[in-house]
Amino acid sequence: MKKIDVGKKILSENEKYAFENILFLTERKKLCLNIISSPGSGKTTILARTINELKDKIKIGVIEGDIQTDIDAERIRATKAPVIQINTEGACHLSAAQISAALKELPVDDLDLIFIENVGNLVCPSAFDLGESGKIVVLSVAEGDDKPAKYPAIFAKSKVMLINKIDLLDGGHVDFDIDRAKADARRLNKEIKIFPISAKTGEGMANWYDWLISSVNKNIF
Amino acid sequence: MKKIDVGKKILSENEKYAFENILFLTERKKLCLNIISSPGSGKTTILARTINELKDKIKIGVIEGDIQTDIDAERIRATKAPVIQINTEGACHLSAAQISAALKELPVDDLDLIFIENVGNLVCPSAFDLGESGKIVVLSVAEGDDKPAKYPAIFAKSKVMLINKIDLLDGGHVDFDIDRAKADARRLNKEIKIFPISAKTGEGMANWYDWLISSVNKNIF
Repeated sequence: MKKIDVGKKILSENEKYAFENILFLTERKKLCLNIISSPGSGKTTILARTINELKDKIKIGVIEGDIQTDIDAERIRATKAPVIQINTEGACHLSAAQISAALKELPVDDLDLIFIENVGNLVCPSAFDLGESGKIVVLSVAEGDDKPAKYPAIFAKSKVMLINKIDLLDGGHVDFDIDRAKADARRLNKEIKIFPISAKTGEGMANWYDWLISSVNKNIF
Repeated sequence: MKKIDVGKKILSENEKYAFENILFLTERKKLCLNIISSPGSGKTTILARTINELKDKIKIGVIEGDIQTDIDAERIRATKAPVIQINTEGACHLSAAQISAALKELPVDDLDLIFIENVGNLVCPSAFDLGESGKIVVLSVAEGDDKPAKYPAIFAKSKVMLINKIDLLDGGHVDFDIDRAKADARRLNKEIKIFPISAKTGEGMANWYDWLISSVNKNIF
């Protein structure tokens, strides 16, 4: 019982900041996407390629969450997009309070879209709303097709599922039944949009870009 | 301050059970390894192959931790090894209390070695000792060579690092600098043993088996 109460308190404090962030973003008509995945699914590679290839169409800023290091922020900085680094110093997820502070440092008025790259973790970040417009879950084919069934919370809550590293499917380098992964995700979430992509080769990225541009133009997902 | 206090209380409760588990295992001279990695690094495939190939040399039992489903336990059951499933129902790591209960259900006296497969998460399980003899961290080459630098806690605490899916390095299907990953892990942990393996093809597994057999025989790591 004690443990559950503690969880509720932390969530409520987080929810207060999340609500502030929603107001901040909605007033300014800015879209904000919270990218969640296991470590090494390719979040940063997806973001860097997306920023570079949409440079002339959408102005993108990034909030980078990492336990330590600014390796990912450096990769985003190379695209010239504005980026704010948050180091959680051991914590397994970003909090809405951290995002609130980062939003004040980003040149939000000059941006169309803000990506939050969460700490690499398929479990904990799903429980902490950041006030984002939507969550994006990334699953690499190298992780296996059973992940939506085994880690259902984030697949149930995401607007989009990016199935990344599909270049590894050619030649059968990994065993991954893409239909099983899609069906399991849709069982959890009828509305989820699914884009198989390779951020390395560029395959499938056009569908993701179309969805992003259309969402920014409509200011809604 | 409040947040830090809460963390300490949970750890202390966990430490009490962890200490009980250490006593339970030490009295019976049983080794117990806590396997930790991101989702999809190959923990279950490594365990199933290890159990099958060491069947005549070591008696192995498994405690399977998953948020939901018994997909992994089913794969272990196919090896005929005794297996206890723990479903954490949303929690991002196994606790020592759960291991204490599982150890009472396993036929421990008939076993030489107990593997605990933790919930797929490179962050949270590193903070919760289970009373294990040692931690094993698994990193798949598909996750990238920067993971020891970005998620240092578990690499600092592990006896062994298994670099899995090295079959993907042949032909350059993934970019992974194995020397960088090794150097970063050793900077965090001078004593860490590192075995590059492919649980799919069997490459490198003999070195891991030699270490396991020698550890069981010496009853020490």
